[in-house]
Amino acid sequence: MKNTQTKQTDLPHVVIVGGGFGGLYAAKSLKDAPVKVTLIDKRNFHLFQPLLYQVATGTLSPADIASPLRVILSKHKNTQVLLDKVVDIDPDAKKVYLEEREALNYDALVVATGVSHHYFGNDQWQNDAPGLKTVEDALEMRRRIFTAFEAAEKETNPEKRQALLTFIVVGGGPTGVELAGAIAEIAHQSVKDDFRDIDTTQAKIVLFEGMERILPPYPEECSVQAQKSLEKLGVEVQTKTLVTNIADHSVTYRQGETTETIKAHTILWAAGVRASFMGKVLAERTKAELDRVGRVVVESDLSIKDYPDVFVIGDLANFPHQGERPLPGVAPVAMKEGEYVANLIAKRVIGVKVKPFSYQDLGSMAVIGQNKAVVDLNFARFSGFIAWIIWVFAHIYYLIEFDNKLIVMIQWAWNYFTQGRGARLITINTSLQLEINPPQPGKESTPQSKQEPVSVSA
Amino acid sequence: MKNTQTKQTDLPHVVIVGGGFGGLYAAKSLKDAPVKVTLIDKRNFHLFQPLLYQVATGTLSPADIASPLRVILSKHKNTQVLLDKVVDIDPDAKKVYLEEREALNYDALVVATGVSHHYFGNDQWQNDAPGLKTVEDALEMRRRIFTAFEAAEKETNPEKRQALLTFIVVGGGPTGVELAGAIAEIAHQSVKDDFRDIDTTQAKIVLFEGMERILPPYPEECSVQAQKSLEKLGVEVQTKTLVTNIADHSVTYRQGETTETIKAHTILWAAGVRASFMGKVLAERTKAELDRVGRVVVESDLSIKDYPDVFVIGDLANFPHQGERPLPGVAPVAMKEGEYVANLIAKRVIGVKVKPFSYQDLGSMAVIGQNKAVVDLNFARFSGFIAWIIWVFAHIYYLIEFDNKLIVMIQWAWNYFTQGRGARLITINTSLQLEINPPQPGKESTPQSKQEPVSVSA
Repeated sequence: MKNTQTKQTDLPHVVIVGGGFGGLYAAKSLKDAPVKVTLIDKRNFHLFQPLLYQVATGTLSPADIASPLRVILSKHKNTQVLLDKVVDIDPDAKKVYLEEREALNYDALVVATGVSHHYFGNDQWQNDAPGLKTVEDALEMRRRIFTAFEAAEKETNPEKRQALLTFIVVGGGPTGVELAGAIAEIAHQSVKDDFRDIDTTQAKIVLFEGMERILPPYPEECSVQAQKSLEKLGVEVQTKTLVTNIADHSVTYRQGETTETIKAHTILWAAGVRASFMGKVLAERTKAELDRVGRVVVESDLSIKDYPDVFVIGDLANFPHQGERPLPGVAPVAMKEGEYVANLIAKRVIGVKVKPFSYQDLGSMAVIGQNKAVVDLNFARFSGFIAWIIWVFAHIYYLIEFDNKLIVMIQWAWNYFTQGRGARLITINTSLQLEINPPQPGKESTPQSKQEPVSVSA
Repeated sequence: MKNTQTKQTDLPHVVIVGGGFGGLYAAKSLKDAPVKVTLIDKRNFHLFQPLLYQVATGTLSPADIASPLRVILSKHKNTQVLLDKVVDIDPDAKKVYLEEREALNYDALVVATGVSHHYFGNDQWQNDAPGLKTVEDALEMRRRIFTAFEAAEKETNPEKRQALLTFIVVGGGPTGVELAGAIAEIAHQSVKDDFRDIDTTQAKIVLFEGMERILPPYPEECSVQAQKSLEKLGVEVQTKTLVTNIADHSVTYRQGETTETIKAHTILWAAGVRASFMGKVLAERTKAELDRVGRVVVESDLSIKDYPDVFVIGDLANFPHQGERPLPGVAPVAMKEGEYVANLIAKRVIGVKVKPFSYQDLGSMAVIGQNKAVVDLNFARFSGFIAWIIWVFAHIYYLIEFDNKLIVMIQWAWNYFTQGRGARLITINTSLQLEINPPQPGKESTPQSKQEPVSVSA
């Protein structure tokens, strides 16, 4: 097939790989720059990942937190969106190789492909304990959570029924805390009147965390508040607990010298991430240094050493030039990095230098249940309902930039007052497909079939 | 496994199979009747099928038009919802056999399992031309429609590009008209600024109808208005056209003596339906008469001849006692039949007879695009914007009974003013799974794996 990039212009060509927070904000910030921009993503939408757990737990629909990249960028006349997958790069020839088209030449390359789940060398746990990165992951979690109650209603053996009503979340970071809180609310509130043969308030929700407290990067005060709120919702919080095995609908864990096994139908993974495929490619082609989880260690301007035209931003980047630890893999960091790189590139075209990247941490937050949160704004800390209000406005502020997100706010208000969960459809097992990679007829094949098998299910 | 129906009561047991409009309204109407009700469905939600085309065309999310059956019926303390599939019945022993549990005994049985697509003996067309009955069907249609534009943006061969931008809808009933109108709006309005290498307003949308006008059961005036509105949106309407073959992304059709073939990447089937599996079961076990498409011919009280305790309602029923033709397979008929049968059963318990079923037709309606419709209210006919307003209120009236459907109204208003289509996510090929029927571990297997392979895809 011929290269479709036939619109010849003399403008520098910026190629951005990945339409998450980092890549999208880089593209948005280049709107009026004297460059031609190509944004490549294997999916046709940007996903507002901080709210993905609400899709997994039946509060929102996928479309509520996803916007087509083409729509967000339709007014950017210098920008083309390509639905494709980068398979390799040649940083010396300045070329990006794609799965479905001829290679693209770039003047600047921005890689923002993020991370996927990491099972610490136990990839066989994936089947039993899916993680939460994609829309399909979220629908699979939703399917498992709500199917568990249905199966429990059918089950007459008390032991099996208890396993069906046991939900384990591995990992006490924000995602784990948010998932555990939401599942507790489902079991103890949302579905409690819906079954006839089971009492869903008897469901057991356990949150495992290896460190000595949940939300380890947060101030201790937040961790304590979060644990209290979770316990009030009915979550059993087990800290200093290492999961040593997951198999056959059970979790084996060690606490000090004791090792125990608990039966659970639903096990959700929120414990670790690993850099995406592009990290390896960059390391091979540019000799860039990778950290322990495969993230690319970047220079103070987010470029790769010896390759000033190749930038890595967002969760895939390890930016070690500020504080003791690299910047965390959260949306605000990715957005600021995207904006910084866009500005650097636009300035470089006109021969102006910019200062090294620096990030002003605005704080962190996590939600616990439908109307509680913990928020650390550095200068002040909040918990409970006030924290939740802050959380809502912080999220609405970013969501509002996209097209139809007013709906989300109304949906939240509605759910808040009705205690409802409208999106609790059990649909078909969405993750299996990713494993199968069906042969596709001709080149009109779907981009989805090339999706990496990030989540596989029994 | 033991029968879970262990709550012994002396109340008559009404078993309802299917949670569509017929079955759900039967269950709802039995709320205060002195009976025990069991509603069996293989899915955990009721689907508001008249709006399914809006999911297929990216206006609504599945959860917007689906409500969990347990939620709708949670206040019905005499009612249990079972997620299961009926595999057989014994009308003499009054037993219903289930896939995952012991058989249930019934005092009255209401069968409301509806219809699925019918390819008039050409089941091999299914792959190329999926139909629209389930949530998965709708997501598959959505995936095909939006993937076609993406593939066209990549394609450089003009002939192949044109095939990718050709959309064919087979069948000019309400669903076909609604689909064709929506696709024309997508191509000519929603996505027209989103691509750089294709002009989506060049897309060709063709509607094929075998009869001499679209919407054949409607008054001729409505058909004429509908065709005009469709043509204004950019749909090519081809009546008196018989599709003779669908294969390899092309449709062969006959008009009079002429036979032609048109290449099209996206072909959607809205032409025929066939009774579901339960029709055959009933015919075998009760000797009930089936009509040409497998629907069960019922008595004037909707029961089966010689089996006064077995009722068939909704799309699966052929009720020939009123007018020249059997009642049409539409939601209002199913709802009225459900209410009638519920009342009959409740009255029979106390020894009171009821009159034969009769249906007062309130009219028919179909939507063309985002703000036009045709409405036939028997006493008056409307088309255009006024008809659309009538259509909106008629649908909101029924939707409002479910939980979170206020959202739908707001979403419509939003879409109407912004011309937006928020739900145009391309997600994984959802229909393949149905074909595969993966082996499921143990009995906690998902109910979805037993779904009939109603839609298969390449």
